[in-house]
Amino acid sequence: MFGNPRYPTYQVFLAAAISALLTMLIMPLFIKMMRHEGVGQQIRADGPQQHLVKQGTPTMGGVVMLLAIILTCMIQARWTNDLKLAVAAMLATGSLGLLDDIESVAHKRSLGLTPSQKMIGLAIISIGFCLLSVNLCAISPAIRFPGGFMIDLGVLTSKFKMGSMPVSIPWLYMVFVFLLMAGLSNAVNLTDGLDGLAGGCSFGVMMAMSMVAFRYDAINLSIFAAAIAGACVGFLWFNGHPASIFMGDTGSLSLGAAFAALAVLTKTEVTSLIMGGLFIIEALSVIIQVVCFKLTHKRVFLMAPIHHHFEKLGWDENKVVLRFWIVAAAFAVLGFALYFKLG
Amino acid sequence: MFGNPRYPTYQVFLAAAISALLTMLIMPLFIKMMRHEGVGQQIRADGPQQHLVKQGTPTMGGVVMLLAIILTCMIQARWTNDLKLAVAAMLATGSLGLLDDIESVAHKRSLGLTPSQKMIGLAIISIGFCLLSVNLCAISPAIRFPGGFMIDLGVLTSKFKMGSMPVSIPWLYMVFVFLLMAGLSNAVNLTDGLDGLAGGCSFGVMMAMSMVAFRYDAINLSIFAAAIAGACVGFLWFNGHPASIFMGDTGSLSLGAAFAALAVLTKTEVTSLIMGGLFIIEALSVIIQVVCFKLTHKRVFLMAPIHHHFEKLGWDENKVVLRFWIVAAAFAVLGFALYFKLG
Repeated sequence: MFGNPRYPTYQVFLAAAISALLTMLIMPLFIKMMRHEGVGQQIRADGPQQHLVKQGTPTMGGVVMLLAIILTCMIQARWTNDLKLAVAAMLATGSLGLLDDIESVAHKRSLGLTPSQKMIGLAIISIGFCLLSVNLCAISPAIRFPGGFMIDLGVLTSKFKMGSMPVSIPWLYMVFVFLLMAGLSNAVNLTDGLDGLAGGCSFGVMMAMSMVAFRYDAINLSIFAAAIAGACVGFLWFNGHPASIFMGDTGSLSLGAAFAALAVLTKTEVTSLIMGGLFIIEALSVIIQVVCFKLTHKRVFLMAPIHHHFEKLGWDENKVVLRFWIVAAAFAVLGFALYFKLG
Repeated sequence: MFGNPRYPTYQVFLAAAISALLTMLIMPLFIKMMRHEGVGQQIRADGPQQHLVKQGTPTMGGVVMLLAIILTCMIQARWTNDLKLAVAAMLATGSLGLLDDIESVAHKRSLGLTPSQKMIGLAIISIGFCLLSVNLCAISPAIRFPGGFMIDLGVLTSKFKMGSMPVSIPWLYMVFVFLLMAGLSNAVNLTDGLDGLAGGCSFGVMMAMSMVAFRYDAINLSIFAAAIAGACVGFLWFNGHPASIFMGDTGSLSLGAAFAALAVLTKTEVTSLIMGGLFIIEALSVIIQVVCFKLTHKRVFLMAPIHHHFEKLGWDENKVVLRFWIVAAAFAVLGFALYFKLG
């Protein structure tokens, strides 16, 4: 562990730096390897025309980010139960994403797993994560708002004993955690449509999450979030337009799941939705587009997700990305400020 | 003043937000006005070819940044002597830059004032600033290193009385402050060669400076630095590639001078050089290029300042900017960490 344990802020700060450096060191090797294998991203044929040049850019960069994050946690953090759970949720969704990426590359099509396969995977992961959080980390089965107001979802809880250990299954909260984790994973996944977009937005959110976890006295989760933020910076070094690598579903699904896991483990279920406001907007834009089109046969946005809408309006890709970063950071700061002011 | 004075961090944070919002509100009007007047940037004919398309983009965006920063200080800060001095230094160099920008636009050439005119202007400003800092704010005429080690530059000081007020002229320190202010102003000015570059790098440096000033118990300077950082974000909204506006010398010279003023007023003369490491590298790259070419008739860099070198190496403009931002932020964090660790 680097940094004097008497100064935990310093340890968190070093975690971000170590993770960024590791990502920057390993990524070029990974890019070279992927180029050598000749495997690259399949670009959706119905997306903006100018994105077709991105065909063939190496993907699955998330693998390197996950590696750097875990190495950083090994170096900087203590493997408390909450950290183990967060890392497990991230790795499990990362594996699901990897499967998706490999399927996609192998069959040379834009989408790998079917949506229902992905959802089943996410359901299994989030149910497991929820049960372990409640039973091992004593997470209360309630949605917590900034200020401390709670909506109790523990009313429909089955309790029994496994050997001598009491186990409870909070059915409602389990559904909520599934919605949160599947929602955020897919939201980050949808955001990952322009060079640098998902990485830059995740950076801001994870910096804020790291400070929230720090204030929650979950120092190891704070280190974990900082490591993710650092990995995002290292990734951006190569993912800036024109991208040399994409994070793939490996990256985007696992970033979203890690975010949801951190929200549950620090009891900031609602605050996290404010901090990740940009991801939510991206997801909502798709939902609104689809629902409205089904109802009225009219499109609300020129193209969904919303970042393509602004591209169609004539904004340059870089300008969309930079402005979305600013908006994402503003949401992150807002959520973080609410948490600090109201608790 | 927004934010409870009992929570000064919150006031600083609000300063950044207010300044960013003000910049984002005023800038579109300014861009429209500049377009209406038909005044735009003259691009150096010997720069990279692809930059010639930037010919005619409105400039002097720094005017709006200065306005937003001052309004923010009026709203959020108390006008203590140190704040007055820092703002005066920024405004004076901003005016010098504005003169330069107007000259440049009026005569449709890339450079406005001659280098010696600029230097004389910077010398007058920095001498005035140094004398007032030493005599009004009790700044000791010494260069301070991280950790507290000082090199005393007060040995050659003339002292006399003006009426009943003792006045001292620390000759050596005056030369140093001139070198610092002229150096940093020109360094930021040189950095301002790619869309978003100077604004993004200044953002990171000013965030770090704000925290340094906060730790130095100079809350009003902390608010000032945060306001500058916020103005940079607001500016970036419009300056992202392809830029709708440039900051001009109005922006770059005044940002550099404000940085130097903050360094002097918080006694972080050396720390600030680490925090602004990227600006220093940009300036050094030009000096090395010129000196080496005069001595050996060979070029060290494909083109100076160094950001053009990487462009010539084939990096996309956006990639250079993003990577330089990361490096600039790393320097800012490093300097800030040194200050926090060593004092």
